[in-house]
Amino acid sequence: MTAALLEQYRERLRTELDRVVDFWLKYSHDKEHGGYFNCLGKDGKVYDELKYVWLQGRQVWMYSRLYRTMERFHRPEILEAAKSGAAFLQKFARVQASGGPGKCAFCLTRDGRTVKVQRTIFSECFYVMAMDELSRITQDKEMQADAESMMDRLIFWVQTDSSDLGRPQLPGDPPINSMAVPMMLLCLVDQLTEGRTDVAEKYKDLSGWCVERILQHIQRDGKAILENVTLNGKELPGCQGRLQNPGHALEAGWFLLQYALKKGDVHLQKTAVDKFMEIPFHTGWDKQHGGLFYFLDVDGHCPTQLEWNMKLWWPHCEALIAYLMAYGHSREPVLLDRFKQIYNYTFTHVRDAFQRLFIWGKVLSV
Amino acid sequence: MTAALLEQYRERLRTELDRVVDFWLKYSHDKEHGGYFNCLGKDGKVYDELKYVWLQGRQVWMYSRLYRTMERFHRPEILEAAKSGAAFLQKFARVQASGGPGKCAFCLTRDGRTVKVQRTIFSECFYVMAMDELSRITQDKEMQADAESMMDRLIFWVQTDSSDLGRPQLPGDPPINSMAVPMMLLCLVDQLTEGRTDVAEKYKDLSGWCVERILQHIQRDGKAILENVTLNGKELPGCQGRLQNPGHALEAGWFLLQYALKKGDVHLQKTAVDKFMEIPFHTGWDKQHGGLFYFLDVDGHCPTQLEWNMKLWWPHCEALIAYLMAYGHSREPVLLDRFKQIYNYTFTHVRDAFQRLFIWGKVLSV
Repeated sequence: MTAALLEQYRERLRTELDRVVDFWLKYSHDKEHGGYFNCLGKDGKVYDELKYVWLQGRQVWMYSRLYRTMERFHRPEILEAAKSGAAFLQKFARVQASGGPGKCAFCLTRDGRTVKVQRTIFSECFYVMAMDELSRITQDKEMQADAESMMDRLIFWVQTDSSDLGRPQLPGDPPINSMAVPMMLLCLVDQLTEGRTDVAEKYKDLSGWCVERILQHIQRDGKAILENVTLNGKELPGCQGRLQNPGHALEAGWFLLQYALKKGDVHLQKTAVDKFMEIPFHTGWDKQHGGLFYFLDVDGHCPTQLEWNMKLWWPHCEALIAYLMAYGHSREPVLLDRFKQIYNYTFTHVRDAFQRLFIWGKVLSV
Repeated sequence: MTAALLEQYRERLRTELDRVVDFWLKYSHDKEHGGYFNCLGKDGKVYDELKYVWLQGRQVWMYSRLYRTMERFHRPEILEAAKSGAAFLQKFARVQASGGPGKCAFCLTRDGRTVKVQRTIFSECFYVMAMDELSRITQDKEMQADAESMMDRLIFWVQTDSSDLGRPQLPGDPPINSMAVPMMLLCLVDQLTEGRTDVAEKYKDLSGWCVERILQHIQRDGKAILENVTLNGKELPGCQGRLQNPGHALEAGWFLLQYALKKGDVHLQKTAVDKFMEIPFHTGWDKQHGGLFYFLDVDGHCPTQLEWNMKLWWPHCEALIAYLMAYGHSREPVLLDRFKQIYNYTFTHVRDAFQRLFIWGKVLSV
């Protein structure tokens, strides 16, 4: 019964993935300047020509991962498209004018001129993902080294000295532990180390560091996941400290569970599910209308982010992955129930958004 | 009939203003560190201790303007509160660490340490408003000079060289004409020149420059007000170019009308009402649920700002001011109808927000 139901879900997800990949193959490629258009309407028309570096990186990664791991996507045009995006990124993503070595732009014009540079690490993270995944197909050692050297720069910025990111040190704004950083780095370690024991050895300490930093976000006697904490894992004052981002917490749960399964760490597996999936699901799910809120305040104040009550596509997508992985590992019926609930909401309310977005494929690769 | 109706509105607004001022006098003053708490819940409790420089400046201005121009607010505790806020700003608002001379922080800790610096001019604009208005009561020449020298710095940044703001020049991001800048400067000229012919003479060219820059936002054969245009008044490509901000347009309409009435410029009066009030009202009003949208795309795409469909308090408040001013000048019944429509929506849906916010007093000072 359950097996039949799962197969039914699988079939539906497979169909959606095909639809999404077809859409992006058809409409997003910039044949004149290389790379991809990111801003497409439902009809496939480009409503803005700006190219976001993290989305370019995500698309290179997606094409490459599909090509490498799923037979029906092992097609020359998909590999060619991945190469075009990677070439665009290698040519234009790095900012010459400002920031330290390797700093990437956040956003580029159609022809690759820098529009905006964020003083964070996330564009660079997607650059690493893109180059690593594509180099696994092409066996391009230089590209793999490019990914790894960007990774090492990221680690330097995060663990040693962030001044090259360009953010001034301000007396009222001491460094904090923001969930996004260790979560993203843990994801990158997983990416870079797949099937490579030497690289896994190199980043072994980093994984431990990431896990420790992620676990610091369990607060309020184990009853809440807070998005921002102090560097030694205490709650911060004010709105920043009380902020919950259920989608981020669930994403962290997915990465933690993946890591814990690899390590065979049963205790961490349980923490990943109980703390980083069940807590954000219970606090983040809209009891009245369904769906995951974008932001919440742990004490019930209205978050200061104007978009706090929106239901975005990505938290739902990542929650599906997290719960499917959790269920696949434990076969606990309650975890499948959660998956069903999120699945039904997703296909009723946010399906349209998927056509234009590109993380979807991850669900099927679980 | 109309006179009685207007008196009824006036009475209601008067009551609201008293309620709002009482609320802020009672709950917002930081007796330990000076300045004001900005983040108050409906119950008056401080939910975050951060102090935003522009809100500190707005509150100093509001107390001072009320004290100076309305008899029932001519009370020692209001003047004292204004002085406390101004002292806090003069002591802490300027950033020592980064930016050029006079650069202000965007946000401070409770005890005045810099949390965030925006690479824009708006905190500085509110600093000017605060110091100028308070100095009109205290006859403090040094404070008036402080306001004027900050104003001159603003003009230098906007007209000559913006590099002290700290925003790097990026090849894909050429300077643009963003409505907020000339609109805000026109508001400041009005503030600084009231009753001072020498200062009015000094900023005469600037007013003309602001008006010209604001009028460049009339686009699409006079049928749309666009938030961002090129420096020579052409439409920009992409989402940035198609962006409409109905609240900003209406605010610009108010400032333009005020300026045109002072100058006796009948043509500009008509432009202010027809283009900067009627167009954003018609395009920005939600036909289904009422209220002004925050952002819209002139071609009907979904704006990329996640908060685009929210109804914020400030555009409604400023639309009330704009239409009351337009009606008061022309006695056109249709303008009073608009005022009524916005008034009814505002009191039904966004009244609660006013208690916590502080621009309200402006309506009565029309």
